[in-house]
Amino acid sequence: MNFTVTILGSGAAIPTGDRNPTAHLVVLRNRVMLLDCGEGTQMQLRKNGYSLQKIDHIFISHLHGDHYFGLIGLINTMHLYGRTRELHLYGIEALKQLIDFQLSLSGTILMYPLIFHPFKTEEPELILDDEMLTVTTIPLNHRVPTCGFIIKEKAPFRKISKDFAKNVKVPFPFFEKIREGEDYIDEGGQVYPNKLITEEPPAAKSYAYCSDTAYHEPIIPLIQDCDLLYHEATFMEDKAADARAKFHSTAREAATIALKANVKKLVIGHFSARYNDADGLLKEAQAVFPATVLAEDGLKLQV
Amino acid sequence: MNFTVTILGSGAAIPTGDRNPTAHLVVLRNRVMLLDCGEGTQMQLRKNGYSLQKIDHIFISHLHGDHYFGLIGLINTMHLYGRTRELHLYGIEALKQLIDFQLSLSGTILMYPLIFHPFKTEEPELILDDEMLTVTTIPLNHRVPTCGFIIKEKAPFRKISKDFAKNVKVPFPFFEKIREGEDYIDEGGQVYPNKLITEEPPAAKSYAYCSDTAYHEPIIPLIQDCDLLYHEATFMEDKAADARAKFHSTAREAATIALKANVKKLVIGHFSARYNDADGLLKEAQAVFPATVLAEDGLKLQV
Repeated sequence: MNFTVTILGSGAAIPTGDRNPTAHLVVLRNRVMLLDCGEGTQMQLRKNGYSLQKIDHIFISHLHGDHYFGLIGLINTMHLYGRTRELHLYGIEALKQLIDFQLSLSGTILMYPLIFHPFKTEEPELILDDEMLTVTTIPLNHRVPTCGFIIKEKAPFRKISKDFAKNVKVPFPFFEKIREGEDYIDEGGQVYPNKLITEEPPAAKSYAYCSDTAYHEPIIPLIQDCDLLYHEATFMEDKAADARAKFHSTAREAATIALKANVKKLVIGHFSARYNDADGLLKEAQAVFPATVLAEDGLKLQV
Repeated sequence: MNFTVTILGSGAAIPTGDRNPTAHLVVLRNRVMLLDCGEGTQMQLRKNGYSLQKIDHIFISHLHGDHYFGLIGLINTMHLYGRTRELHLYGIEALKQLIDFQLSLSGTILMYPLIFHPFKTEEPELILDDEMLTVTTIPLNHRVPTCGFIIKEKAPFRKISKDFAKNVKVPFPFFEKIREGEDYIDEGGQVYPNKLITEEPPAAKSYAYCSDTAYHEPIIPLIQDCDLLYHEATFMEDKAADARAKFHSTAREAATIALKANVKKLVIGHFSARYNDADGLLKEAQAVFPATVLAEDGLKLQV
């Protein structure tokens, strides 16, 4: 299945020439979702060839500027381009007040429905549940109320085997039922057990996004066995004291979470502008969890 | 004298690949000022090699997003880089409320004094007056309260003539007085009339910035004879109806203002994203006012 994450911004609080502030674009089949929206995200979408109008869900992890200063600009540009379809926005309650205030300042009445879904940050909450996926919050440990998000694909349909499809003429309405797991009974009453006429679907995948957090073991059960984990790694162990003071993680801590949660792959990002080069961060993480990659602006990952 | 304007963003409401939203950096000797601050301005400053910490005055013309969405990010980055010197911010009262709200959301207490100077938009107001320059608002005609700004250099000091400096030994404390226009009387009582020992200073220059406005003749006396005028030109005459409806100007209207105000040079910008190419806008303006140039991101102009 098509399930990708594109890093639009891999930097931390201060944007650098190479690293914009945080934003991840997640595409799961025809669902397009944005996780956080630092300043310049709309330009990054354009630069990476994505249509901003296809985004239907935006999740904001917390209200530090490098995670949301680009949101009002994106909302405004969607409006100026004549959007009419709904946009769903998820964040803490204060975010809605801020957006309303900013729209009122410019006298803007959006041409499209902006539907706000507030969440609390103490407990995990299921905040989106449709026929294709779920999104659940991951309470993190940061200086302000903060949640990550885990996006889980729902179990895909079984695949009808080619042999069966070739040899037995199945009326169209039955296809979906067979893919959902039912046996097929033809007009003559012959039963074709589902297991014999279908193949296992590909496994349902999941992507966990942990934006800004100190080392925080309570997240482990929430992200257990996920296919791809993004975990911030603002510092290396040489600046562990800074990490503690600012409720951020080191690369080694991010990797330790990945290891303990048994994830398949880890991507680290949100590197402090004090590191000119992220190689040290990568090495530190890989020493604990080898299947680690570095976030880079424009990097596209398969979940 | 060093008096330059660097266009950091020349686009209109919707940023394009080539044109960021509006921001102009003005440098007058050692004064560094920013006029408007669209999304991405801090990245544009970096890209063009300017230190954001040298900016001491930021003027926001109005609260449409393409003129201020980058402000909070810039303020925040100055803080993160450890700024301690004062920053002066000029805008309508609501801007302060918004900044305070955003800072409170992230729990940020700025490390530097952010001094807010509110202005009203009905009448021209002198909002900055120091030993080097004045800044006065230019009430414009837009959909929300909007002011442009005119930055006027104060008359520079007279220049002491080379011959005099070579032949007469003037004690250091007298230099400034001579440059300010006083005669010099030496120890023996001989009078050197100022006009004979100094040269005319270069003329004091002025830069007028008219951000977003319909064609509005009341601005003409306020910008009369200025050296450089920036006037928005969102549309050409082919979309004059759009210009009227949105309280914007056409290129011909911008040029007409420049002509009637007898300015020395006109720079037009804020082109609608609907024009792929600005050549038509330039031609339309030059037909009325030949000394017109196009704003481009990164363009640096001498006032």
